[in-house]
Amino acid sequence: MKKIMLCELNVSEGRDEGKIDEIASALAGTPGITVIEVNSDKDHNRSVFSWIGTPEDVLTGAQNAARKAVELIDMSLHHGSHPRMGAVDVAPFIPIRGVSKDEALEIARGFGKFLGGLGGTGVPVYYYEDAATRPERQNLVDIRKGQYEALPEKMKDPAWEPDEGPFQFVPKSGATVTGVRFPLIAYNVNLRTDDLGVGKEIAKKMRYSSGGLRYCRAIALMLEERNMVQVSMNLTNFEKTPIPVVFDLVKSLADSYGVGIAEAELVGPLPLAAIEEVVRHCLRVRAFTVEQIVETHLLG
Amino acid sequence: MKKIMLCELNVSEGRDEGKIDEIASALAGTPGITVIEVNSDKDHNRSVFSWIGTPEDVLTGAQNAARKAVELIDMSLHHGSHPRMGAVDVAPFIPIRGVSKDEALEIARGFGKFLGGLGGTGVPVYYYEDAATRPERQNLVDIRKGQYEALPEKMKDPAWEPDEGPFQFVPKSGATVTGVRFPLIAYNVNLRTDDLGVGKEIAKKMRYSSGGLRYCRAIALMLEERNMVQVSMNLTNFEKTPIPVVFDLVKSLADSYGVGIAEAELVGPLPLAAIEEVVRHCLRVRAFTVEQIVETHLLG
Repeated sequence: MKKIMLCELNVSEGRDEGKIDEIASALAGTPGITVIEVNSDKDHNRSVFSWIGTPEDVLTGAQNAARKAVELIDMSLHHGSHPRMGAVDVAPFIPIRGVSKDEALEIARGFGKFLGGLGGTGVPVYYYEDAATRPERQNLVDIRKGQYEALPEKMKDPAWEPDEGPFQFVPKSGATVTGVRFPLIAYNVNLRTDDLGVGKEIAKKMRYSSGGLRYCRAIALMLEERNMVQVSMNLTNFEKTPIPVVFDLVKSLADSYGVGIAEAELVGPLPLAAIEEVVRHCLRVRAFTVEQIVETHLLG
Repeated sequence: MKKIMLCELNVSEGRDEGKIDEIASALAGTPGITVIEVNSDKDHNRSVFSWIGTPEDVLTGAQNAARKAVELIDMSLHHGSHPRMGAVDVAPFIPIRGVSKDEALEIARGFGKFLGGLGGTGVPVYYYEDAATRPERQNLVDIRKGQYEALPEKMKDPAWEPDEGPFQFVPKSGATVTGVRFPLIAYNVNLRTDDLGVGKEIAKKMRYSSGGLRYCRAIALMLEERNMVQVSMNLTNFEKTPIPVVFDLVKSLADSYGVGIAEAELVGPLPLAAIEEVVRHCLRVRAFTVEQIVETHLLG
């Protein structure tokens, strides 16, 4: 089975199209990779580059894109509404097909070492999620607290010694967070009600933090235009908390409030493996694997 | 979108491994194709070669395999328990991704013309399913009635003038049926009962021929080893009669007899497109398309 990995490189430039194009070109010139998406947001002043390929090719792509981003972006001049800490802000490496966590970790560390030595000064690098070296570095939000502006102080605190790169503030590049995470599934279910209280009760029972499913985060929000309540969920491990199980529980909870489900959405790219459990659960085909799908033979 | 087609070449040799290997080699040597399966059955004395690729490459593969099969197989010496009529017995061309019915028909006709002129005598060819030239030639069972042994008589009857090739009996090669059909889904649902009568009632209500779903064929049979009844179905158009709709109806009918569903199976290769409606229906993601799956970006 050919190994497939995904990288989603978050870069702190979402306005200057010339610079975004230069980074995209540096990435696209990498042999063996397939760029899925380049998503730029002017308000956030941030772009997300997504590509797939073998782990080695994906790493080379990350190096090519990051080299260009570090060259072009000056964080001391950066403003944007999205939290950020570095020119290359976050780079998750995500196993998609046939890639073990250990292999993925090796790739993420390869990228961390590369960034740590990049340019004249190197870039301070923190490992997060499955690559974290300390429990308090698992969560991106914790690491990025205070953002770029907090870095000069952080770099004086031994607790914030980087995992790679210089233990000093690098004004131009800031700092980068990289690591390995499981593919995240964004699954939103719209309820046939305008009662946000019902949605909040359901979200509360769904999410792990208040007693729900282990790999489910959930909030409820009002879709003003549609006058409907949405239960918006992130599933952080679709193997252990499968999408159809999440659906069944949402449906059962909605039923208990006498509320129907209008429709749902899966946001963003979905690994083929995530639909395995949909077929198993919904059609009762317990032995189903994606290898049974004709097109998988073309993936190598 | 790169076009993908599937061919399932049914050849009347399932015992002589040397000959099977020679045909497999002729097929595998075709540039651009991916062989999915070579399935030989000694009782049937028959092998099914399955491969995918662009329509043009799939056609070339069919020509390469058929040339070798017609060279090696002598139907006047053939015995086997599976109905058959020719050395190359049946060759369905099946659109999998981005291939229109017209494009598929062109490929099937290209193969028919090739066979019609193959070897010294050519091979009589009948088009079936979507490629049929007359209503009475749509169904393979109708065309193959009487099998190889009936061909000498058939070839005297104007009603059986072939669509391609010589209008005369060719003892060595017999006759070939080729055409285009939609991917067929074999879906079997096992019921928690040993009452075959319940299974038969459910199968009757499921199948088109007795009032059921338009693209559903169904029978009930006893799984002796498991002491369970199985509703065994062929879905001939998964776009118009989607698998999850079939499941829901079987489940509802089983419920009405107080019978549960133990499990189900999908037999054989499944086009990725067939799971689209599973996600839409079962997770309520109405807007879902397979293009949202990461790996489809690698299909080109």
